[in-house]
Amino acid sequence: MYRTHNCGELRAADINKTVTLCGWVQKVRNLGGMTFVDLRDRYGITQLVFNTETNAELCEKARKLGREFVIQAIGVVTERSSKNKDIPTGDIEITVQELNILNKSEIPPFTIEDNTDGGEDLLMKYRYLDIRRRPIIKGLQLRNKMSFEVRRYLDGHSFMEVETPMLIKSTPEGARDYVVPSRIHHGEFYALPQSPQQYKQLLMVAGIDRYYQIVKCFRDEDLRADRQPEFTQIDCEMSFVEQEDVLQVFEGLAKHLFKEIKGIDMNYQFPRMVWKDAMEQYGSDKPDIRFGMKIHNITDKVKNHGFKVFDDAEYVCAIAVGGCANYSRKQLDEITEWVKRPQVGAKGLVYIKYNEDNTIKSSVDKFYSPEELTEIAKFSGAGTGDLVLILCGKKLPVLNQMGVLRIEMGNRLGLRDKNIFAPLWVVDFPLFEWDEATQRFYAMHHPFTSPKKEDYDILETNPGEARANAYDLVINGIEIGGGSIRIHDSALQVRMFKLLGFTEEKAQAQFSCLINAFKYGAPPHGGLAFGLDRWAALLNGSDSIKDVIAFPKNNAARDIMIDAPSKISDEQLDELSLIIKPLTDK
Amino acid sequence: MYRTHNCGELRAADINKTVTLCGWVQKVRNLGGMTFVDLRDRYGITQLVFNTETNAELCEKARKLGREFVIQAIGVVTERSSKNKDIPTGDIEITVQELNILNKSEIPPFTIEDNTDGGEDLLMKYRYLDIRRRPIIKGLQLRNKMSFEVRRYLDGHSFMEVETPMLIKSTPEGARDYVVPSRIHHGEFYALPQSPQQYKQLLMVAGIDRYYQIVKCFRDEDLRADRQPEFTQIDCEMSFVEQEDVLQVFEGLAKHLFKEIKGIDMNYQFPRMVWKDAMEQYGSDKPDIRFGMKIHNITDKVKNHGFKVFDDAEYVCAIAVGGCANYSRKQLDEITEWVKRPQVGAKGLVYIKYNEDNTIKSSVDKFYSPEELTEIAKFSGAGTGDLVLILCGKKLPVLNQMGVLRIEMGNRLGLRDKNIFAPLWVVDFPLFEWDEATQRFYAMHHPFTSPKKEDYDILETNPGEARANAYDLVINGIEIGGGSIRIHDSALQVRMFKLLGFTEEKAQAQFSCLINAFKYGAPPHGGLAFGLDRWAALLNGSDSIKDVIAFPKNNAARDIMIDAPSKISDEQLDELSLIIKPLTDK
Repeated sequence: MYRTHNCGELRAADINKTVTLCGWVQKVRNLGGMTFVDLRDRYGITQLVFNTETNAELCEKARKLGREFVIQAIGVVTERSSKNKDIPTGDIEITVQELNILNKSEIPPFTIEDNTDGGEDLLMKYRYLDIRRRPIIKGLQLRNKMSFEVRRYLDGHSFMEVETPMLIKSTPEGARDYVVPSRIHHGEFYALPQSPQQYKQLLMVAGIDRYYQIVKCFRDEDLRADRQPEFTQIDCEMSFVEQEDVLQVFEGLAKHLFKEIKGIDMNYQFPRMVWKDAMEQYGSDKPDIRFGMKIHNITDKVKNHGFKVFDDAEYVCAIAVGGCANYSRKQLDEITEWVKRPQVGAKGLVYIKYNEDNTIKSSVDKFYSPEELTEIAKFSGAGTGDLVLILCGKKLPVLNQMGVLRIEMGNRLGLRDKNIFAPLWVVDFPLFEWDEATQRFYAMHHPFTSPKKEDYDILETNPGEARANAYDLVINGIEIGGGSIRIHDSALQVRMFKLLGFTEEKAQAQFSCLINAFKYGAPPHGGLAFGLDRWAALLNGSDSIKDVIAFPKNNAARDIMIDAPSKISDEQLDELSLIIKPLTDK
Repeated sequence: MYRTHNCGELRAADINKTVTLCGWVQKVRNLGGMTFVDLRDRYGITQLVFNTETNAELCEKARKLGREFVIQAIGVVTERSSKNKDIPTGDIEITVQELNILNKSEIPPFTIEDNTDGGEDLLMKYRYLDIRRRPIIKGLQLRNKMSFEVRRYLDGHSFMEVETPMLIKSTPEGARDYVVPSRIHHGEFYALPQSPQQYKQLLMVAGIDRYYQIVKCFRDEDLRADRQPEFTQIDCEMSFVEQEDVLQVFEGLAKHLFKEIKGIDMNYQFPRMVWKDAMEQYGSDKPDIRFGMKIHNITDKVKNHGFKVFDDAEYVCAIAVGGCANYSRKQLDEITEWVKRPQVGAKGLVYIKYNEDNTIKSSVDKFYSPEELTEIAKFSGAGTGDLVLILCGKKLPVLNQMGVLRIEMGNRLGLRDKNIFAPLWVVDFPLFEWDEATQRFYAMHHPFTSPKKEDYDILETNPGEARANAYDLVINGIEIGGGSIRIHDSALQVRMFKLLGFTEEKAQAQFSCLINAFKYGAPPHGGLAFGLDRWAALLNGSDSIKDVIAFPKNNAARDIMIDAPSKISDEQLDELSLIIKPLTDK
């Protein structure tokens, strides 16, 4: 072993010990006859001290050390005269007796500091240097601890981790698969899993009762910020359970993680919200409940006052923004422009200022009396000093727009503190989703999701209202994961396939293995999957999942550090019986 | 929850409790007025009892249960009149009060018993039923426990699990990559990792000190028994260590696993053997040291006695097979034929019978006196009653043949008890491997493997004798894993590339990322990787790794359960700009 201790563990209690440390040179400072070297490894920083009076040669050697040199220092732990309260090793320093350069370093392309001077492309190209920076290594440490604690919790609850295959069968529906050509089987391909959904249900048929896996999944989607072509899921499934059992077990997991990772005790039951309320009150199926600012349906209150825009609208809704009645014309114009951007898509914005002095001011003064406006403001949750923002249009789109505006106002008012965590179960998702383009219903979750028993009767007559035993865990407005109770009854499954327009042939073509397996005694079962990257980013206080992925790809699905994807050789193509179609042929 | 207990946990202490169990019907037996149902889940079997006198209707219902029906039974834990000592729940049975059929089952294609009547293809096609069988579920449980304990041990030793990417860059040398066409980047491909070797070394440059990962790896190899296209590695790397440190840490891991999985305390240091001794004494770089039967070099003793075969041979070696002097002519002929099979490849076999009565009998009586033969026998380790088997030829091939024969004789004599575990470190592997075809040296491990310091001087002058800081962990003749200390000194690395005939361009083309990374302060580092499938199979007493893989592929790399690989749609091919070359064009 090249060292006796790491750079983060020595304390006052170690004074007078002779130690050997290894690490990277963070900084060299010369102060008069003294030279100080900050030695860094993943555990921390320890100060090395060299005195030109006691050992001029050694001190000279230290002065020549470059940034990021790898060194070994042997010396005695000494009490510092001026202590550094900012770091755990700040009470001590090492009076060095021997210094060995283990490796030199060229000058790195950016500074290895918490706040670096490197741009994103440079940081990604030299990710192995980026990782040396405290914020990145901290993110990876958090992710590691989180994975370990997930396993510890689930293992303690009789879950078995089972590895499912990576080389599976491509299914045409759903998101796009990454495929892998087979060399042995001419013209055939494997697919990389988008999730182990079918396999975990097969494991339930197999009697594995409580399954989990922390597993890489793949989706060949079009470019979008903060999506990775490969991502990691905490994938879980249980047998002989109902929805309540699943929620209890995984609420326990969430609490375990908050406790172990963040030191937060969540000694309360997570709130639950049905999907319909989430949409109507928060304009989102993943409400951020760290702040109120609920959406109110004011359609009935505003119609028939001669304001054509409202009269023509299907739905009019409002939020009350606390303490913003004093917004200037300029500020209100800016918000109006903001909601009219294509990313939000509103046609316009109506406001009511409910002033501190009880007066009222609105962009629709002409159509409503001050009393009417005051009533609308109060109904929308406003008190004096608050600002009411109103949008109108078709119900679901306008709720979505209002949901986005609500989040924006929450951000502007500083209501979304990263150190506060507000978990929420969203339940009773719709079973089906209507698709305007193809004029038919699709399964919102997947075709094996079970309807709620109370809604069995309306499956055929009113499918749009039918609810599923499906649930999402949402924290701070981020969907951390979700799942459902599956159908295990074959008659109900046949009914579902029919409703979804699956012929028997089509169902067989896509799901034959699972459908056949279900003939041999499928237990009642259900489960869920969490996005590990996203959950880790949330706990890490990161805005991007890249902060908790060791070697992420860029937004063009490219690893610019190792240069992938790249051309392969003609021999490889030939062995796979593949020809690349020239771009011009497309 | 559909149940209060599982089928493996009720004991005499639970008598009189009312419980609810769920599971699969293993067996229904009618004895007079009583009906007994064996209810099975992954935890065990519990006996349900129905009495036609107390509840005829319920009993009738139970009698109609089919094999593998999924049921829920509510009843009272009762003491059995005739206890079953073979199962942990054998003291009790459940007197059932309510029986619910949760799902029916068709008659399974094979019996769900420890010894099933299903052939291998049928078992693989219905793997989800195969897994219900105790031997398979036990294998998966062992694997799960092993993975968990690996993590627990390494986490306790400051190792961080870091996920490395699955979509990486293809490198032309080495085994064949599986590749993944990119849709966005025309004509480019990702590769699936054969191992995270480059990434783990980059993590050392990044300062992650102690890394591990239990990770899927991929190799597109030609068909071979008991190989899987995807397999799982326990991949590890450490910084600031020498070979001894790596061996200590991972010997600790091995001991931890033997203790936790098999309850075996290994309170001794694992023996170590240099590669040269392993080859000369066991004819293998992975000796099974559960038994002796060492190989002895008798070249000098047998030459110049007029026996042309030996006189012409480069190397003559022998093993002494205990207690087999009484082998018949027929038995010896059979062994001779066995070693002449192409799989072994020997030209012939010479024997010496050192009989109980001190007489000697050999197939080469003509050329050697009984005294000479006795001396050879004794030198080969034989005593009276033993049989000496002799092979000759070129040194390395004949040692390999003798190694295979030694294992075969060990098997025949029952010397390879599955319940005995004999771990061994094989160290000092050669740095280079000579390739006859291309008349040059190749790196035996990989080009970053460091030579032993003592051999720096002979790298250019006598490369064939140079040894590496490389090591394998071998248990019972199976290579469980191996690794090396890497080169971190760039001057030495340049020297190695030169020796291996890499031009600078070629080195850059294959390893540019790692070579560049090494410029910025690479720490001394080394590591290893274990084959999880193989180690789990070994601990499970399995001959095939398929016993510890939930959904293995067959020997043609096909998943016959889910039918992969398979054709993909023309749209998919088109999006990927791929054309499949017809077979006839090849």
